[in-house]
Amino acid sequence: MHSLITHLECTACGLAVKSEKLNKLCTACGKVLFARYDLEKAKNIIDRDKVYGRRSSMWRFNELMPIKSPENIVSLDEGNTPLLRASRLESLLETSQIWIKDESANPTGSFKARGLSAAVSKAHELGIKKLTLPSAGNAAGALAAYCAKAGIEAHVFMPNDAPQANRFEAALAGAKVTLVDGLISDAGVLAQKMAKELELFDVSTLKEPYRVEGKKTMGYEIASSLGWRVPEVIIYPTGGGTGIVGMWKAFDEMQSLGWIGSDRPKMVVVQSEGCAPIVRAYEQGKKFAEPWENASTIAAGIRVPSAIGDYLILDSVRKSGGTAITVSDQEIVENMKIFASFEGLWVAPEGAATLAAYKKLLLSGFLTKDSEVVLMNTGAGSKYLDMVESFV
Amino acid sequence: MHSLITHLECTACGLAVKSEKLNKLCTACGKVLFARYDLEKAKNIIDRDKVYGRRSSMWRFNELMPIKSPENIVSLDEGNTPLLRASRLESLLETSQIWIKDESANPTGSFKARGLSAAVSKAHELGIKKLTLPSAGNAAGALAAYCAKAGIEAHVFMPNDAPQANRFEAALAGAKVTLVDGLISDAGVLAQKMAKELELFDVSTLKEPYRVEGKKTMGYEIASSLGWRVPEVIIYPTGGGTGIVGMWKAFDEMQSLGWIGSDRPKMVVVQSEGCAPIVRAYEQGKKFAEPWENASTIAAGIRVPSAIGDYLILDSVRKSGGTAITVSDQEIVENMKIFASFEGLWVAPEGAATLAAYKKLLLSGFLTKDSEVVLMNTGAGSKYLDMVESFV
Repeated sequence: MHSLITHLECTACGLAVKSEKLNKLCTACGKVLFARYDLEKAKNIIDRDKVYGRRSSMWRFNELMPIKSPENIVSLDEGNTPLLRASRLESLLETSQIWIKDESANPTGSFKARGLSAAVSKAHELGIKKLTLPSAGNAAGALAAYCAKAGIEAHVFMPNDAPQANRFEAALAGAKVTLVDGLISDAGVLAQKMAKELELFDVSTLKEPYRVEGKKTMGYEIASSLGWRVPEVIIYPTGGGTGIVGMWKAFDEMQSLGWIGSDRPKMVVVQSEGCAPIVRAYEQGKKFAEPWENASTIAAGIRVPSAIGDYLILDSVRKSGGTAITVSDQEIVENMKIFASFEGLWVAPEGAATLAAYKKLLLSGFLTKDSEVVLMNTGAGSKYLDMVESFV
Repeated sequence: MHSLITHLECTACGLAVKSEKLNKLCTACGKVLFARYDLEKAKNIIDRDKVYGRRSSMWRFNELMPIKSPENIVSLDEGNTPLLRASRLESLLETSQIWIKDESANPTGSFKARGLSAAVSKAHELGIKKLTLPSAGNAAGALAAYCAKAGIEAHVFMPNDAPQANRFEAALAGAKVTLVDGLISDAGVLAQKMAKELELFDVSTLKEPYRVEGKKTMGYEIASSLGWRVPEVIIYPTGGGTGIVGMWKAFDEMQSLGWIGSDRPKMVVVQSEGCAPIVRAYEQGKKFAEPWENASTIAAGIRVPSAIGDYLILDSVRKSGGTAITVSDQEIVENMKIFASFEGLWVAPEGAATLAAYKKLLLSGFLTKDSEVVLMNTGAGSKYLDMVESFV
C-alpha cells in the first residue's frame, strides 16, 4: 500500500497545508508542521500484526509514512532495532523492568538514520537536489549517507569539536563539510545563510516536517515489541527532541488506529548539566525554552542550546506526567561503563545519560523499583571515541 | 522448539563426539569439529517461512543452533542484518546485480557478534566462567560484550596496533585486555599459555565448535532474503574464515531441510596483498595453507597469518567453483570511499576489499556484468577510524 498522507498541519495554529510541495515551518505562525494521514482508512486496511511480515525496516509502516511512491524511498534498512531486556542492570539495581531501545543498530550507528531516511526520501520525491543541515555530529553523518545513496548533494555544518567519526564519515560519503567555531546553533546560522546563497533545502530538526516521521517509528516499534502496549516510562536524551516529539505523535496515531489504548508512557527528558534549556523551562513552568548560554557536554548530541520544537517536547512531558532532569558528564561516563560491563553495550554518551537519570529518579521517588522503563540509547558509543577516551 | 543438536563430528576424520561436555578440536586428529543436528526431524517441524515470524535475531533458527535451553542464550539481538541492493554501484560499474550483506548492523558493529553470541551462550550453558581468545580486534570487543552480558570473565589478547576502538570497547566492558607486540598469531600463543595458567576456556576461531554455528546464520539469512535461493557468487574477506566455512555448512543444512536446492554460490576469498595465505595455497593447489610471514594490512580483521580452518575454506572455494584473490591496501581505501559516496555505507576495510575484488574479477572475466554477487561487509568502518584516517 502507498502512503495515506492527506496534508500537513501546523502544531501551533492548526493551519492546513498541502504536502505535494516544498514545506518548512508554518507560513502563518512559524511553528512546526506535522504530517497527517487518513487514519480511518489505515485502520481498516492495516493489520498491525501483519506489518511485521513486511520488509525489515521502519518502512514496513509505509502507509503511515509520507512517501507517495515506494520507489522514492531512500533506505539502508533503518529501524527495526532491538528492545533489549536489561536483566543484569535489573539485578544490579534491584529493580524489575528495564528495557533498552538500542538505536546503535541503525545504519550510520544512530537514530538519526530514521529521520534522515524519511527526509531525504521526501526531498528525493519532490525533486530536490541539494540538502543542508547543521548538526552536532550524527545527523551530519546520516544526511551524508542518505544523500550519497540518493545521488543528492549534501552540505553539512558542524561544530569544529564534533566527534571525529562524524566529521570523517560525512566527508567520506562525499558531503561538503564546513566546521564552525561554535555550537550547533552557530552552525545553523551559517547553514541558513549558505542555503540561501546556494539554493540548498534546509532539513534542520523539525524545520521541515519529515524527519519527525522517521523518528516516530521508534514509538511504533516500542509498542509492537511490548505486544502492542506502551511502557510506563520512556527516558529520552533530549537535544532537538525530534524523537520524543515523534514518539508522542506515534502514540496518538496508534490510538486512532486502534493499535493501543489511551495509556501513555511518562515521557522523561534528560539533558546535561552543561546544556539544559528544556529542563530549565520545565522547572520554570514555561511553554517555550530560552536558549542556553555557553553549552558544554561530552554528549555531543544533546549539546543543543535551543530547540524549535521546545513547546512540543514540554507538552509531551507535561501531558504524560513525565519530568525533566539533568545529569553531569561524570555521571554520563560512569554509566557508560556500567552499560558496557553489565549489558555488553557500548552506548553513546546520550544513551548513558538515560541510565544516570533512571538512578536519580529512583532515588527521588519519581520511579519505583517496579516501574517499567525504556532507556533510549540513541547511538553507538564507538563513534564518540575521541570524546570519551580520556574520561574512562 | 529446542535445539535439535545430536552430536559433534570431526570435519577431517569423521569422529563423533558428544556435545554435552567441553569440546575444542578433534581429540583424534586435531582438526575442526562441527555440530550436527537431526535435520530430518527439523525438516518436519520447521516451516522456513514461519521462522521469520519469530524473534528478530539469528536465534530465530533456534532448532538449528547448539543451545539446549533457551534461557542460556546470551543475546544482544545479533543477526537479521540487511541485504541491501547496491543500485548506485550497479549504475557506476554498469553491472546488474550487486548485493551487500551489511554486518555492521550487529551488536558491537561487526559479524563477530554472531559467533560470540553462540560460543558464549554454549559456554554459559556448560557452566564455564572464564573465556579467552586472541583477536585482531572485533572478536575481542564482541567476546567482552557477550561475557559482560552473561557475567562471565573475558581475557582478550590483541596486537598492540589493533584498532583503538576495539582495545577501548573490550576494556570498557570489563575484559582483561593484554596487548601483544606482534600479530594475532602471537596473541594466540600467549592466550593459550594463559588459558592453561588461569584455567580459561579458549574460544579461538574454529578451535571450539560453536562460533561457526553463529556465523552460519549469515548463510540462512542470505538465502531467506533472496526468497530461499542462493546468489551466484559470494565474495568474502577472509581472515580465520569462520564465516565462509559457516555459510558453506548452512547451505548443506538448508538443502537437507529442503529449504534450498543443490545450487551453491561460487565462494570467493579475498585477502590483502600483505597477508594472503589462503590465496597462495589456492593458487598452489594445496589443501592446507602455510603461515604468512610478516603479515601487514590496514584491514585488521584479515591480518591473520594462519587459519586452522584453512582446509575447510579451500574446500568450499574449490567445490563451489569459486576463486581466491588479493587486493592492495590502496584499493581497499579507494573502495571504502566508493562504498560511502555511492551507497552511503562506511564499511570496514575488509568490506571494502570485497568491492575491489569484485572489480578485478569483472576485468579478469571470472564475473560477468550479469553475475549476481553478494559482497560481505563484515563490520562498521567507524571502528577503524585510527587505521584509515590518514589514508583518506
